[in-house]
Amino acid sequence: MSSPAVGDDQRRDACATREAILKAARRRFSSCGYADVTLRDIAADTEVSAALVVKYFGSKEDLFTEASGFEQDAERLLDCELPQLGEHLVRTLLDYHEQTQGDPLLRAVFTSSRPAGAQFRANFEHQLLTRLAERLPGPDAQLRAELVCSHLMGLAASRLVLRTEAITAEPKENLVAITAPLIQNWLDGPL
Amino acid sequence: MSSPAVGDDQRRDACATREAILKAARRRFSSCGYADVTLRDIAADTEVSAALVVKYFGSKEDLFTEASGFEQDAERLLDCELPQLGEHLVRTLLDYHEQTQGDPLLRAVFTSSRPAGAQFRANFEHQLLTRLAERLPGPDAQLRAELVCSHLMGLAASRLVLRTEAITAEPKENLVAITAPLIQNWLDGPL
Repeated sequence: MSSPAVGDDQRRDACATREAILKAARRRFSSCGYADVTLRDIAADTEVSAALVVKYFGSKEDLFTEASGFEQDAERLLDCELPQLGEHLVRTLLDYHEQTQGDPLLRAVFTSSRPAGAQFRANFEHQLLTRLAERLPGPDAQLRAELVCSHLMGLAASRLVLRTEAITAEPKENLVAITAPLIQNWLDGPL
Repeated sequence: MSSPAVGDDQRRDACATREAILKAARRRFSSCGYADVTLRDIAADTEVSAALVVKYFGSKEDLFTEASGFEQDAERLLDCELPQLGEHLVRTLLDYHEQTQGDPLLRAVFTSSRPAGAQFRANFEHQLLTRLAERLPGPDAQLRAELVCSHLMGLAASRLVLRTEAITAEPKENLVAITAPLIQNWLDGPL
């Protein structure tokens, strides 16, 4: 019987491998398009076997659906009542940064910018942005949802890509305190 | 003697060619690094001769300095007194979007994210971000400057990459009216 520590290590490794495969899949699919990518390409990028990719994700279509999608992110990001949603959004995204050095909104920006990014962009819009807009009362809900996402994307770009000094050094709770009220204003409306 | 219309066309063509060369140079240099890029590569990407690249930009070093730099952008963006700077920043960036389908802050994000993007990132920081921070009175000037840039980057990503419906359709003056006061609050401080 393996000790609990070994079990934890294995789970962590499996999780990291899964993330690495997803990341490679996102890059390949958004750059080259579904038809021109094979599971073998993605496996090679991640230095694992194609069989392991199949074991983790099933078919190429299943992998594409998961790699290009924002369903799970939307579930996590929108899992909060409206009066606290501003704070929840900021805190959840800052947690993502810590845990994965990634951010789903920033991922939408980068994948959408690539030659075959149209499906990523459409999924971001339908699975996350529109769902947020539908939650908002009052006029200009779509515009307010876009302003919210837009601000959060900028924050992620500063922290994860440009890694600008002050925003990166600022304690998480201070960033929540600075930005959540602004986000909440847009969520509550009106503009 | 050529008619004024032909002269205008030539100037427009020259300007577009110059922009295309700069764009290719940015992509090449930030992806591959200075040493691994030749003027011939950049010329080929733009479908012009290497001689034309030299005519427009001088040496490879000169081209790198201009392609990786934010001096001219900073000059245009910061050319305003502090009390009106919020509005000036938003309006100037929205003008960039209309005129070039590009944005210097978004360019900083994309070039910095590439394997050889360190010099682009450093230039963005020294030539634009720090210069903005130095203009700001009161405490947390660096953090406030970063929040300003961060918000403007998000706006650019929404308009130029994700092209989300409402932000893209919103008239320029409305976007200025919505976002400039927020930007100005950070510029004026305190947080």
